[in-house]
Amino acid sequence: MQTDNLLKQVSFIKEIDKLKYIQRKTKLFNSDRCENDAEHSWHLAMMTIVLAEHSDKPIDVLKVLKMVLIHDIVEIDAGDVFLYDTTKSHINTDEELIAAKRIFGLLPIEQAEEFIAIWTEFEDGITDEAKFAKSMDRFEPLLQNTSNNGGTWAEYNVPHQTVYDKKKVIKEGSTTIWNYAENLINESVDKGILKK
Amino acid sequence: MQTDNLLKQVSFIKEIDKLKYIQRKTKLFNSDRCENDAEHSWHLAMMTIVLAEHSDKPIDVLKVLKMVLIHDIVEIDAGDVFLYDTTKSHINTDEELIAAKRIFGLLPIEQAEEFIAIWTEFEDGITDEAKFAKSMDRFEPLLQNTSNNGGTWAEYNVPHQTVYDKKKVIKEGSTTIWNYAENLINESVDKGILKK
Repeated sequence: MQTDNLLKQVSFIKEIDKLKYIQRKTKLFNSDRCENDAEHSWHLAMMTIVLAEHSDKPIDVLKVLKMVLIHDIVEIDAGDVFLYDTTKSHINTDEELIAAKRIFGLLPIEQAEEFIAIWTEFEDGITDEAKFAKSMDRFEPLLQNTSNNGGTWAEYNVPHQTVYDKKKVIKEGSTTIWNYAENLINESVDKGILKK
Repeated sequence: MQTDNLLKQVSFIKEIDKLKYIQRKTKLFNSDRCENDAEHSWHLAMMTIVLAEHSDKPIDVLKVLKMVLIHDIVEIDAGDVFLYDTTKSHINTDEELIAAKRIFGLLPIEQAEEFIAIWTEFEDGITDEAKFAKSMDRFEPLLQNTSNNGGTWAEYNVPHQTVYDKKKVIKEGSTTIWNYAENLINESVDKGILKK
């Protein structure tokens, strides 16, 4: 039984290596090199550990870590959807659910079910853990773009109001981080790297 | 106070982006592209979540996750030391300790102290959490090398006994994973991708 589980787990561990090839639109800090999903997931995990104290509500940090570590794995099949792409839906698509079932389905059944549940909880964004995880997911590219002279905002001509509306999700997880983020957005307008 | 902490934490979050530029010798699965330390750390975190049930001793999974997520951050200053490099020490060097103090020292003092303690605990390899974390750190490149026709073993002519001795650390964390790993090593000899 233990060995059966291990064989399934190893096939999952090999499969998720593909996350390292999924390129995001956002660039690394002070860089013109795109970030990949594995690097992004690691960075969100580090941010979760470091910033958990700023959550407005008490959170189960281990659960948030699981969320941010696995949240993009479905993109191995479904691809990365750019936050400001207006032609594609950002809500829990059928394609992503099929991907979740295929990839997490490589694991032993109890683990597969746990991972699908955690991923769905993240996507739904209702629990305190999901809200904090989503704050992290919005905060990292904000920091990256401000370090890159506007980054994807400038590159894709994203207007201030759109950025503001998308980033306001941060407030659901942490008022302190949102206050800081809102200031960064305002400063970006002042600097001319985000158009009003 | 909260904002003071946040400013320090953001400077740390920016600094550790550099981990994405630290190249390891080991290649991705079925690939000739080197893995970087951020990708490696994400993969170890995923392996920890997925394989924790195989730990011989009960472990605090959150602590192991912190260990594997931060274990290579010192390499931003100190560089990656290849496991089979016989010209360099692999034990907790002065250079790495200075790096830990500088980089973790960007955080608020209590967090800096916690991170240095966790990193030191990992390096010492004595607690059950450190043993399991080290098992993960040895197991990932073993899986990668066997998927790459011997990978770094073939590339650097590493003999079977050296691989065996280095990998045996896996046994300290998990007998089940070690039994599987030992089989993989033996199979590699049979296939001629690891020289006896």
